[in-house]
Amino acid sequence: METQEITTETTLPCASSEQCSARLNNIGDALYVIGGKWKLRIILAMRDGGHVRFNELQRVIEGISAKVLSNELKELELNGFVKRHVDIGTPVVVTYVPTDYTHTLKDVLRSLAEWGEQHREKLRAEG
Amino acid sequence: METQEITTETTLPCASSEQCSARLNNIGDALYVIGGKWKLRIILAMRDGGHVRFNELQRVIEGISAKVLSNELKELELNGFVKRHVDIGTPVVVTYVPTDYTHTLKDVLRSLAEWGEQHREKLRAEG
Repeated sequence: METQEITTETTLPCASSEQCSARLNNIGDALYVIGGKWKLRIILAMRDGGHVRFNELQRVIEGISAKVLSNELKELELNGFVKRHVDIGTPVVVTYVPTDYTHTLKDVLRSLAEWGEQHREKLRAEG
Repeated sequence: METQEITTETTLPCASSEQCSARLNNIGDALYVIGGKWKLRIILAMRDGGHVRFNELQRVIEGISAKVLSNELKELELNGFVKRHVDIGTPVVVTYVPTDYTHTLKDVLRSLAEWGEQHREKLRAEG
């Protein structure tokens, strides 16, 4: 029998199993709404709070297709992160703007930024 | 001309544009490693720190295909979150265990849990 070295510490210590499953549900809910490959990237791409056109978003967010961007924007709109803004001029101009509700993601974005920074430092240290 | 009401506040205020782009890079790095639909779910599914078999992971993580789970586990292993553990008995048993490095995600998971909780409360308040 051959085994690799492993660690057995718990990843997410909880005070009780109720607390643990409530927490997992909360994380699940969060991932359901802002998880996935694109949602936070789209929110970040609108970070200046200005009006952004669809084509501009697609240009800024590398690798996203028009179909996926369109679907993701609809979901973000449904969940209150984005407003679709229609200027009925000639031509009609559709832009997207982040809502105040995106501010509630500040802590999530901050923790991701901090983690990303320490991860890069780890990779650098490992050479 | 008809316009919808919009908000123009900035989503992610930064002290300077250098700070802002550093932060965005950090978030981008984090999303690159732990973003996507499945990575955090897989890490959560291993939360007890025990050895989990592939089939068990697939059963617990709703909707993941064997092919996707296999790829995601490889990426998680490459990034130091998961160890593949091989017991060369009869039959050979392969299990997966989280590493200590998953602990560095504590803040990210906490902020997601908090956000998920307030989001559910918001939905409840809106009826």
